[in-house]
Amino acid sequence: MPTSTGNPKRTAKRRTTKTSPNTPKAPPSLTYADSGVDIDAGDRFVDAIMGLMRRTHGPRVLANDGGFAGLFRLDFNEKLFKRNYKEPVLVASTDGVGTKLKLARDMDTFDTVGQDLVAMCVNDLIVEAAEPLFFLDYLAIPKVEHQMLVDLVKGVAEGCRIAGCSLLGGETAELPGIYPPGEFDMAGFAVGVVELRKATSGMKVEPGDVVLGLASSGIHSNGYSLVRRVVEHARLDLHAVYPELDPDQTLGRVLLTPTRIYAPSITKLLRGYKVKRVVSGMAHITGGGLAGNLERVLHPGVDAVLDRKAWPVPPVFTFLKKHGNIRGPEMDKVFNMGIGYCVVVRPAFADAVADKLARLGERVTRIGMIRKGEGRVLFRS
Amino acid sequence: MPTSTGNPKRTAKRRTTKTSPNTPKAPPSLTYADSGVDIDAGDRFVDAIMGLMRRTHGPRVLANDGGFAGLFRLDFNEKLFKRNYKEPVLVASTDGVGTKLKLARDMDTFDTVGQDLVAMCVNDLIVEAAEPLFFLDYLAIPKVEHQMLVDLVKGVAEGCRIAGCSLLGGETAELPGIYPPGEFDMAGFAVGVVELRKATSGMKVEPGDVVLGLASSGIHSNGYSLVRRVVEHARLDLHAVYPELDPDQTLGRVLLTPTRIYAPSITKLLRGYKVKRVVSGMAHITGGGLAGNLERVLHPGVDAVLDRKAWPVPPVFTFLKKHGNIRGPEMDKVFNMGIGYCVVVRPAFADAVADKLARLGERVTRIGMIRKGEGRVLFRS
Repeated sequence: MPTSTGNPKRTAKRRTTKTSPNTPKAPPSLTYADSGVDIDAGDRFVDAIMGLMRRTHGPRVLANDGGFAGLFRLDFNEKLFKRNYKEPVLVASTDGVGTKLKLARDMDTFDTVGQDLVAMCVNDLIVEAAEPLFFLDYLAIPKVEHQMLVDLVKGVAEGCRIAGCSLLGGETAELPGIYPPGEFDMAGFAVGVVELRKATSGMKVEPGDVVLGLASSGIHSNGYSLVRRVVEHARLDLHAVYPELDPDQTLGRVLLTPTRIYAPSITKLLRGYKVKRVVSGMAHITGGGLAGNLERVLHPGVDAVLDRKAWPVPPVFTFLKKHGNIRGPEMDKVFNMGIGYCVVVRPAFADAVADKLARLGERVTRIGMIRKGEGRVLFRS
Repeated sequence: MPTSTGNPKRTAKRRTTKTSPNTPKAPPSLTYADSGVDIDAGDRFVDAIMGLMRRTHGPRVLANDGGFAGLFRLDFNEKLFKRNYKEPVLVASTDGVGTKLKLARDMDTFDTVGQDLVAMCVNDLIVEAAEPLFFLDYLAIPKVEHQMLVDLVKGVAEGCRIAGCSLLGGETAELPGIYPPGEFDMAGFAVGVVELRKATSGMKVEPGDVVLGLASSGIHSNGYSLVRRVVEHARLDLHAVYPELDPDQTLGRVLLTPTRIYAPSITKLLRGYKVKRVVSGMAHITGGGLAGNLERVLHPGVDAVLDRKAWPVPPVFTFLKKHGNIRGPEMDKVFNMGIGYCVVVRPAFADAVADKLARLGERVTRIGMIRKGEGRVLFRS
């Protein structure tokens, strides 16, 4: 094991960097401490989250008490966890959560957006058929607020638990000069691995392929600037219950529902099809909606034709459309409208794949198919 | 190769997410486009940086035109580039640049802080004896400013070139709701690899070991809140030349000097010592200064004793101390004072290692040694 200093404050794979507030004073002798830095608060936070992080670590994570970088074994030769790769290709992605963070602040609820952060990164990894391995996060705040930070990391840790990856480390930057009071940001970074042969298999969607849609949990992480404008414009109350939306949850809670993480089911699905060429493409539905994202699995010779009536639009979208008086095409462009992830399958396997995904806990619907065309996503109804 | 959509706007491994400004208007029908989103500006930016990113890619980076995740081959079986790992351990780290970004804005100079971002992440990887493989960045801005963003990525690409790693991808988030005009933030993620045997070699510094200091290029990336306060308090002019500081550069340019990246020399140094146990510890000198960081290589049975007179303090620190009337201990706590990276070596190899590092381009000095003690970093003079 690498050198341990024995000082618990130094054992964290998370660093807290601190800096001064916007308006400098002018004392006779300038010190860093005048800048409102609370080193103890930072250390207390680190201690509080160590347990959260360690619970996401499997046997592949090596202890690294002295350093700031996290260590993760790629191959593991124990019989129980044999997951060796002949020719491993690392897959990496980064993303943020965006304006949904402001909603978390509005709701004073910080323990769910960490899951959104993991979802946004990991859902992009699995599109490449990669197995998620580990995750790191960067949190930037104007001031260390202990409970808020612990809740943010709780959400990230929960997301990692669901996704089956290790929360290896992170950075918390206290930057009052950049972030006004109340604002904050989060960036996530996920790494996965895929066998070279799979990464370069050259799978292409073909006419006749079936488009399966996996239900979203709600709005997920895109479109929140519009969401917040609807709430303001229509004078909606985040803490009220609107029965036509959801009789059991406040509006705010519905809007804050974390992004669904598709990793466990997709990873298991793909393990069952190592040899057969069954899944010809996948898409994570984010900004740009179904059309904007499904377009990426197409090539110039094919179209995807979707049937809107094939899946139920969740109440939250109907609610937003009504209260914001938002036109249909605008809704389609901004929101996922109920489908968070797409799997394109060879027709002979469509039923089997849909069935397997359903047994793995997804709500799956055939939402359309591929036909000869020009690289467009079209709606039949 | 994975499916290509053929649409150049979709080929980027960089996504630009956009959102609305702070103060919503109330038009009859709300649209996302009202929010000041400029999708074309985002796409132009992506096109502009594709070349910058590709130049950092070696043969290990796989094309992934349809997706948002970057692909990187861990092992590569070509004779020319054989870099196989028997038992690879992935090493990952994340960091930001902090308040130095505000100085970049003050100077309207955005093409250097990207190098700082890479340095902060990669210098932490090499402390673990890891070889840097790839990097991703997250940029968050209130509004797409084309040249500024291109310059930021230029800096990141240059940092990756120096560090010898591939800029695999990134995310640019346009978040006017979170970032006031003029503010922005950057987060970096670096992944490296180290042989398991090396990662868990249990090297411990021992009494008699020599502490070698590698010169910093300047302030690096910590302490900038204090730096900016000194500039303001002492009414210094960033665009003026202060001869006692540097007769050839403005104050602003000196302060903006990018963090030195120690990866090329350290990686080469460690390659030469695969078998012998020569380097017993390393430290990247960041927030907390020499004492705060060197402390991490110690264990309860040893002290590090350093000799201040052993290395020249660069003029920038003397300048800041004088104009901010900052006390010595405060300077030591906040700034690197001229040493950016430490290598602790077995005494028999100290001269050889110092010599090798010097030939690799570093300015190296013996700055102290390890002796029996209690886990402290002490200054002898």
